[in-house]
Amino acid sequence: MYNNDAFSQWLGIKRLEDGLGKSVIQMTVRPEMTNGFGIAHGGITYAFADSAFAFASNSKGRKSVSVETSISHTRALKVGEVITATATEESCTNKIGVYRVVVTNEAQEVVAIFKGVVYRTSKEWMVE
Amino acid sequence: MYNNDAFSQWLGIKRLEDGLGKSVIQMTVRPEMTNGFGIAHGGITYAFADSAFAFASNSKGRKSVSVETSISHTRALKVGEVITATATEESCTNKIGVYRVVVTNEAQEVVAIFKGVVYRTSKEWMVE
Amino acid sequence: MYNNDAFSQWLGIKRLEDGLGKSVIQMTVRPEMTNGFGIAHGGITYAFADSAFAFASNSKGRKSVSVETSISHTRALKVGEVITATATEESCTNKIGVYRVVVTNEAQEVVAIFKGVVYRTSKEWMVE
Amino acid sequence: MYNNDAFSQWLGIKRLEDGLGKSVIQMTVRPEMTNGFGIAHGGITYAFADSAFAFASNSKGRKSVSVETSISHTRALKVGEVITATATEESCTNKIGVYRVVVTNEAQEVVAIFKGVVYRTSKEWMVE
Repeated sequence: MYNNDAFSQWLGIKRLEDGLGKSVIQMTVRPEMTNGFGIAHGGITYAFADSAFAFASNSKGRKSVSVETSISHTRALKVGEVITATATEESCTNKIGVYRVVVTNEAQEVVAIFKGVVYRTSKEWMVE
Repeated sequence: MYNNDAFSQWLGIKRLEDGLGKSVIQMTVRPEMTNGFGIAHGGITYAFADSAFAFASNSKGRKSVSVETSISHTRALKVGEVITATATEESCTNKIGVYRVVVTNEAQEVVAIFKGVVYRTSKEWMVE
Repeated sequence: MYNNDAFSQWLGIKRLEDGLGKSVIQMTVRPEMTNGFGIAHGGITYAFADSAFAFASNSKGRKSVSVETSISHTRALKVGEVITATATEESCTNKIGVYRVVVTNEAQEVVAIFKGVVYRTSKEWMVE
Repeated sequence: MYNNDAFSQWLGIKRLEDGLGKSVIQMTVRPEMTNGFGIAHGGITYAFADSAFAFASNSKGRKSVSVETSISHTRALKVGEVITATATEESCTNKIGVYRVVVTNEAQEVVAIFKGVVYRTSKEWMVE
């Protein structure tokens, strides 16, 4: 999945850890990611957390589709900061999965808190 | 604000309409915005909606900071689609503002529904 | 459904209007519904909005299960206030429905804004 | 605050633990709390989680006002079940606090996941 993910590559996402229902990823804030306040655009942090959510929720073989996500931005991010997103599964039934993603900076401070819900389709990923 | 917003420029956002508590913007989905499924990354739609939210919530002169946002992605987006985000104010008290952003495609179908809450600081924007 | 809904009856909910993907309901805030601040407990407004959401999302015959809901409380409610919740459908695909509920007071002021997402099961309601 | 909270008393909430930015509470699902499906109304679980959120977010002396909350209902609740809500602080700046509440049943299964954001006013609670 990730090899074809153009936007994740633009973000510069590195996958640090994968597991069943889990994903840990990392990236660095670049100048082209900032908003009018000189700090990372909220969309960057969301996209980053959303990627960890997608990796975690698709990790069990069933194609999963995001149905609702929310994010609280708790701390501003400057250019050059390295951020880490850790996605974990909170609940997983046959059809619905709930995931939590915490984004932290290098000082381990919480930068954003993300919650995502997926609908788990009956389609399986191809395992190569 | 927008002139310094590097990421909004990368997205290619055009501002169609501005008003008090309102913003209408437009952009086109490009190949570098897609995810592993060949459709626009959820982060792109969020970033787009979040921009309309920022324009609308900062339109009254008081600097406003996002405290919580949520988005439902209701329809997949392909490369080349032109999308429009319309942000409107739902509630605005002295300290808190609530905004709704609807993202539609060219067929006027709803692509995403976004809700955002801001804390309204006491700082004023410079009016040039 | 409603005849067996004990909590909706405790709340004193009256159904004003029903339609496909739509519901309008009304209730009055009572003293036993208040919190430590002397105003309606946030759970009351949520329960009220959630009821309208349930009526609207189950109105098409398919049993629908809430998977994620959010609410912004935008104005305090006092004892004796009559409130109205209007639920409308924002999006409805085969498996997922998105609904919006606006709660207003007698002065038509917005008291709460609710968003809800359901998973639409394949079970049909019995039509009596 | 709690002594005057009529609705929390109707719910039958017991406070098990209080701390700075923390609250653990418990209650039992009663027949009058059920919906048309014979299970606890979503509003009951929300009200319960919202109470833990209110206790935790007001625990530091500053009056805090809910600005946005969301809840995922992950498992149905039957009459007689004893549920526990644990609220913890995720982030707390001068003006904004973010809290997470997990509701579990007696088997320690997650019943609901709640996220709440408060605006922290400058008013202090009276300390008796």
